[in-house]
Amino acid sequence: MNVSFIGSGNVATHLAALFLKAGHSVNAVYSAHPAHARRLAKKIHAQAVPEISGTLRGDCVIVAVQDDSIPAVVKEIPATDCLVLHTSGAEPLSLLGKKFRNCGVLYPVQTFSMHSPSPESIPFCIEASNTASLAKIKKLARSVSRQVQVMNSKERKNVHLAAVFTNNFSNHLFVIAENILKKKNLKLELLLPLIDETVAKIRLQSPADVQTGPAQRGDEQTMREHLALLGTDRTAKSLYRLFSQSIRERVRRKK
Amino acid sequence: MNVSFIGSGNVATHLAALFLKAGHSVNAVYSAHPAHARRLAKKIHAQAVPEISGTLRGDCVIVAVQDDSIPAVVKEIPATDCLVLHTSGAEPLSLLGKKFRNCGVLYPVQTFSMHSPSPESIPFCIEASNTASLAKIKKLARSVSRQVQVMNSKERKNVHLAAVFTNNFSNHLFVIAENILKKKNLKLELLLPLIDETVAKIRLQSPADVQTGPAQRGDEQTMREHLALLGTDRTAKSLYRLFSQSIRERVRRKK
Repeated sequence: MNVSFIGSGNVATHLAALFLKAGHSVNAVYSAHPAHARRLAKKIHAQAVPEISGTLRGDCVIVAVQDDSIPAVVKEIPATDCLVLHTSGAEPLSLLGKKFRNCGVLYPVQTFSMHSPSPESIPFCIEASNTASLAKIKKLARSVSRQVQVMNSKERKNVHLAAVFTNNFSNHLFVIAENILKKKNLKLELLLPLIDETVAKIRLQSPADVQTGPAQRGDEQTMREHLALLGTDRTAKSLYRLFSQSIRERVRRKK
Repeated sequence: MNVSFIGSGNVATHLAALFLKAGHSVNAVYSAHPAHARRLAKKIHAQAVPEISGTLRGDCVIVAVQDDSIPAVVKEIPATDCLVLHTSGAEPLSLLGKKFRNCGVLYPVQTFSMHSPSPESIPFCIEASNTASLAKIKKLARSVSRQVQVMNSKERKNVHLAAVFTNNFSNHLFVIAENILKKKNLKLELLLPLIDETVAKIRLQSPADVQTGPAQRGDEQTMREHLALLGTDRTAKSLYRLFSQSIRERVRRKK
């Protein structure tokens, strides 16, 4: 397939590399920041185009920009029969559907950073405005991933919300843990095997069945001592209390 | 080394298996529940003893019981010069120090479950009442782990608190994510590659440098929509709000 990108950030960069590797060609890259478009285009041997219309010559154009920039980009794209996709978990297909006959969503359930290698596995949630478009998107997604799921915008939004809990909020817990250790000149490295095991467990059992810790067993004394240790960090204390309460609630409901 | 256990739960079971594998001998197992002691003893070809004094014949006895049961066990153990250890992250060495001359702590920074294989990597935080005891514990721990750190009870308590944030609370986030997906008949499997990548990232960079998501970029609309999606789940909503606030606070402090 012949693909172009509007946007030149993390998502565009990693998807472009992935598609190239799978034998697709990447035609053109457009960005509101021409220097960024040139940088990505150079990396993937594509053409940086100065006008958004330059991205509409292939089979499909992928709008990979921040969620709140999608409406402005949609306005700028001239009327076209080319397949137009966005990559957002949170935004509905209708953002594109009101203007383009052939459109869809290709949402990678992953986190990308500029200087990291592409993740080994990327599930895709896809959706399209019609059968022919869906077939095209399915083919494209399946050429680079074994996990491709067709779902509507409401379902995808739930996946995105769940992804925020698992990725963004877990990472923030690691930030808090790192700070707790730093106070004693200890390193997060000490917890990496535990984190690995936490993740390994939920491949075998539901996380609901492997919950452990002071809150799960109702160890009030340890919880009080932990809160005292958190000292003046009010937000970490509130999180500790709320997690403990939420874990207790589930214990009570299970009984 | 010749080791005995008081307690026959997850920690005793996994440590006993680990020590045996490293060439140590496990002598005796005592438990307040004799049937549990017999079950573990049978598994590791040790002797289930009916009296706590039966565990004091080797080089070292490991008290691997729930934190709040340690004081009662300490009372029951007769005066001895045998090295007495506990395995708790939260409890101080002084719990043992007031009664035993040779005592220490061997805290495995890991999570164990009854029916899972032993984790591949277990860091140990160790502490002892004197140099000779510390040397013994160090030798024992190093025979089964490459990550052995000597630290005092206060430092260990911080490690335990950080472990609660990374393991217990992360797992609870996975529980919430699974519930969000279940509402749409979707499976947590869809998020496993994202969870893997979240963990892979913090091996390369501090979690503070890889925080992403709606809160990090100040995307108020997505946050409002996520809160609406959480519907009547008040606890999940409170967690969402508190995490977003805490992430925003750190963004502001960095600026």
